[in-house]
Amino acid sequence: MKTNMTRNELKVFLLHAPQDKVLEYLENAHPVDILDILKEDEKNDCLDILNRLPENFIAEIIDEAEDEDKYKILMSFSDNKQKNILQEMSSDEVTDLLGILEKDQADRILQKMTTDDARNVRRLLSYEPDTAAGIMATEFVAIKGDMTVEQTLKYLQKTGEDIENIDDLYVVDKFDKLIGVVALKDLVVKSFDTHIMDIINPNVMPIPSNMDQEEVGHKFEKYGSLTMPVVDNFSRLLGIVTVDDVMQILRDESTEDIHRLGGVDEGEKISGTTMESVRSRLPWLVVNLFTAILASAVVGVFQGTIEKVVALATLMPIVTGMGGNAGTQTLTVIVRGLALDELNYENEKRVLFKEVGIGTVTGVVIGLIIGIMSFIWQGNAMLGVVMALAMILNMVVATVTGYLVPLILKKLKADPALASSIFVTTFTDCCGFFFFLGLATVFMRFLI
Amino acid sequence: MKTNMTRNELKVFLLHAPQDKVLEYLENAHPVDILDILKEDEKNDCLDILNRLPENFIAEIIDEAEDEDKYKILMSFSDNKQKNILQEMSSDEVTDLLGILEKDQADRILQKMTTDDARNVRRLLSYEPDTAAGIMATEFVAIKGDMTVEQTLKYLQKTGEDIENIDDLYVVDKFDKLIGVVALKDLVVKSFDTHIMDIINPNVMPIPSNMDQEEVGHKFEKYGSLTMPVVDNFSRLLGIVTVDDVMQILRDESTEDIHRLGGVDEGEKISGTTMESVRSRLPWLVVNLFTAILASAVVGVFQGTIEKVVALATLMPIVTGMGGNAGTQTLTVIVRGLALDELNYENEKRVLFKEVGIGTVTGVVIGLIIGIMSFIWQGNAMLGVVMALAMILNMVVATVTGYLVPLILKKLKADPALASSIFVTTFTDCCGFFFFLGLATVFMRFLI
Repeated sequence: MKTNMTRNELKVFLLHAPQDKVLEYLENAHPVDILDILKEDEKNDCLDILNRLPENFIAEIIDEAEDEDKYKILMSFSDNKQKNILQEMSSDEVTDLLGILEKDQADRILQKMTTDDARNVRRLLSYEPDTAAGIMATEFVAIKGDMTVEQTLKYLQKTGEDIENIDDLYVVDKFDKLIGVVALKDLVVKSFDTHIMDIINPNVMPIPSNMDQEEVGHKFEKYGSLTMPVVDNFSRLLGIVTVDDVMQILRDESTEDIHRLGGVDEGEKISGTTMESVRSRLPWLVVNLFTAILASAVVGVFQGTIEKVVALATLMPIVTGMGGNAGTQTLTVIVRGLALDELNYENEKRVLFKEVGIGTVTGVVIGLIIGIMSFIWQGNAMLGVVMALAMILNMVVATVTGYLVPLILKKLKADPALASSIFVTTFTDCCGFFFFLGLATVFMRFLI
Repeated sequence: MKTNMTRNELKVFLLHAPQDKVLEYLENAHPVDILDILKEDEKNDCLDILNRLPENFIAEIIDEAEDEDKYKILMSFSDNKQKNILQEMSSDEVTDLLGILEKDQADRILQKMTTDDARNVRRLLSYEPDTAAGIMATEFVAIKGDMTVEQTLKYLQKTGEDIENIDDLYVVDKFDKLIGVVALKDLVVKSFDTHIMDIINPNVMPIPSNMDQEEVGHKFEKYGSLTMPVVDNFSRLLGIVTVDDVMQILRDESTEDIHRLGGVDEGEKISGTTMESVRSRLPWLVVNLFTAILASAVVGVFQGTIEKVVALATLMPIVTGMGGNAGTQTLTVIVRGLALDELNYENEKRVLFKEVGIGTVTGVVIGLIIGIMSFIWQGNAMLGVVMALAMILNMVVATVTGYLVPLILKKLKADPALASSIFVTTFTDCCGFFFFLGLATVFMRFLI
């Protein structure tokens, strides 16, 4: 095993070692490592390094690069070299590259491709981008049932080098309809004269071409496949989706949920500029401002009560703060449960009753603690009672709201993570102020 | 392709169809589908269905089941049948099963295994559970460099059926030291007489046996491997980790982060009981209660100021609320950036300056809006100025705090997601009250 070079040593090696040594190293190098070097480098060195790389390797680098960078990397080369690079890329990789370009930019690139390749890619571009058909590759191995293991291996030796993924060999009939699959690892353990039909797995799970990409990802998570076949309405095999494409989709989905729960646009990146982040966060902050004003309006209604017992102003943020925390806890569990498909029709009711129970128990515990502390602080028993009651009420409201809001959003086909926290915290704030100051107003004569 | 049965039809089929038909169906069925049926069933039917399944299939079901259920399923069978099932399971699957049992329960099961298998599993159990060695399997294919493709295929035909994962064939020297790897898909496209040493990839990335499992997952995400080799200090091959094990780990890691950000214990499940959830959330709520009291104490210091201008009580929740929102936004982006390794030494400073900039710009915008609205509401220009100033100050404090807290926690080797939000919101609440009521006190003569 070669000793791994540090990033700087690798950069020097790529820039200055003889070309044949570089090619030998690259035969087994991983494009991600080279991409890391390119990312953090000044422009001149980048171009020098890129010009020393063979075209198939450049194709792999473009595949691993961020969407915004793919076009830039391709454009660093001459037209002729671009043609060769495009030929090395698989159809879904080219589709990724073209998917974010303007139409004329994309057309110029398509013109540099062979007629067949361009036609494949145009077809892929015609699909909705975030669906199975939008993320699939059209290079796959399709074999017939009457072939033997030896014939299949010989076929792979002839054609397999150009096909990116041969983990699963899909079996089709004479009309190109999918009838089953043979995993490569199941093929190689059988004797050479075994027929495909004897080892075929007919229970293959075809993915409709219009399935949402995140749903495709969940199927991979559930069934642990390496690839899954995409079919059209007539069960004809259109292409395949692979597990590594899907890992990126699942990671982006988690990031999206986490960002949305925190009130941040899912596209915001650490690497973005200040103004990009401002544009991402400001709309949310403005919305929050107006809901905060709404909650403050509730306080304004009871300004007379606060004038009489100013200690209420000191205590009221505790009630709303705890309501917000409890609501966020419920919200977090519910939203994640919806995303992982653990919350569904079968357990909906049980979970609702559970949240009511949680709100009640935690409300009583917290209410008792703060009620007693308020009593001690001001020496007024009624203040403690008002505090405890308001706390219990608000925490039950919080857990129920934290349950209902994401579920309602989901039933309205909206993303539960997106606006849930704003609705939940606004509602619990308003209720918290209302319960606390309202109870204080009702029992005012005991508080003065 | 067989038509898929509904879950109820499948249950009836499994219970009542002739045994040979059931076996034929199971040859290509997925254990997850059978597991779904078992999960929602009453106990009697479960046992009947389990007793009709062949032992290798039961082994796969145990592997797919939740940790708490694995033991229960195994124990539904006679001792003899348990022995056979254990023989069908791979070493990492048995390790998962035993990992959560008491020592005497685990020993009783180990006694039912063959001496070799038991020794393998005892060794795996001796490793830290959440490390590479703790999650690896010891069944893998190791070949020598002087073999040909044809010899390798014949070897696979002889031994491959018992080995769960043959996607990557690891090449070792005569001392069992890892010298490289040949992917199965690279093997099958070469002619039969090719030597292994001619197609070996020497740049294999070995994983040290004590690497944290989440770090292992990130390596899979970054390099798109199907399997990765685990080695000891002498580079000897100990076992392999596979991508499907890692997908579960990565999903659990995202759930953990999401739960911690929301103040929920990472183990809390939708399927848990009310009291389990109360126990998960109550500690966090009590901590939040005391930090809320801390913030209220700041208000208490300025009670005299509020007595003079009661409108301040109506406005102050807006300042702290916006601080909390801004702090949470920053926190979300920073925590996720740390988890995805996008925030590191190289861009630390730039991101800090960026957050200061974001806090300033958004603070000015929000401050202007609410300052003007406060002025209009009470007809007092100084109130508007105080509001605007407090808002700007608090939002800069919020973004900086949202940046510093997770980073400090990370440098102290604690989980940034865990306690960040409590520290951030407490600090921004205290500062918000302090700035707003403090400025109001200083400029009191203009406010009355």
